[in-house]
Amino acid sequence: MSRCIDLAKQAADIGEVPVGALIIDSQGQIISQAYNLRESQQVATAHAELIAIEQACKSLSRWRLQDCTLYVTLEPCFMCAGAIILARIPRVVFAAHDPKAGAAGSLAHVLDDSRLNHKCDIVTGVCAEESSVLLKSFFKMRRKK
Amino acid sequence: MSRCIDLAKQAADIGEVPVGALIIDSQGQIISQAYNLRESQQVATAHAELIAIEQACKSLSRWRLQDCTLYVTLEPCFMCAGAIILARIPRVVFAAHDPKAGAAGSLAHVLDDSRLNHKCDIVTGVCAEESSVLLKSFFKMRRKK
Repeated sequence: MSRCIDLAKQAADIGEVPVGALIIDSQGQIISQAYNLRESQQVATAHAELIAIEQACKSLSRWRLQDCTLYVTLEPCFMCAGAIILARIPRVVFAAHDPKAGAAGSLAHVLDDSRLNHKCDIVTGVCAEESSVLLKSFFKMRRKK
Repeated sequence: MSRCIDLAKQAADIGEVPVGALIIDSQGQIISQAYNLRESQQVATAHAELIAIEQACKSLSRWRLQDCTLYVTLEPCFMCAGAIILARIPRVVFAAHDPKAGAAGSLAHVLDDSRLNHKCDIVTGVCAEESSVLLKSFFKMRRKK
């Protein structure tokens, strides 16, 4: 997760909301890593998790990431939680909760919705304070501009 | 929507689940069009709507699609419904409902969730029968193989 925090800091450095994500395989090898690029790319879907999932699929040449774990500094939104389910990722570790848009416990429970054809284990709270402070100081800085 | 059905048929022709999507601007001009490419690309996120949104953002060089309408032959899943909200699309027209994975009325109401910072008008039922028949015959054919 500390590597994810570093990725989030890289996002903040270029004016992006500081969220970082990475995907590892069952051997602990990093398959992909990404941070938010919405403003830089002007693409609405360019969230850290979605980019990391797309890169992992391309890197492994398969859409099922059933042996992978996704780490991310902020609770996934509806889009990213949906993407995690579609990619059959069995385990997600996230740092801070997102009470406004989080779909993995805050507003909804997309990752462990028994009506869907895949469910995902969730670990939360790892580096939560660090991620939260990073996000808060980013938005505070941005309001000052 | 009949153009979307044609796109869905193109997907079926290459062995993809037949779903087609397109995005038009306020003048009725087609900005982007896509169909499912999950199997061809081996990318879990390669749903018609997500590809159409990414292409539209790139084509217009902006992430806010606040003057656009998205047409799709099947009710969006969690990922795609989340992407529609993130892109600030104000209107979605979809054909058939998806009782197993739909997040725009079937399993959830992501497109008109008042807790999110954007809401979207939904029109449904246009060419629903045609889209539904296309999907059913695709899965029937696939089971036979």
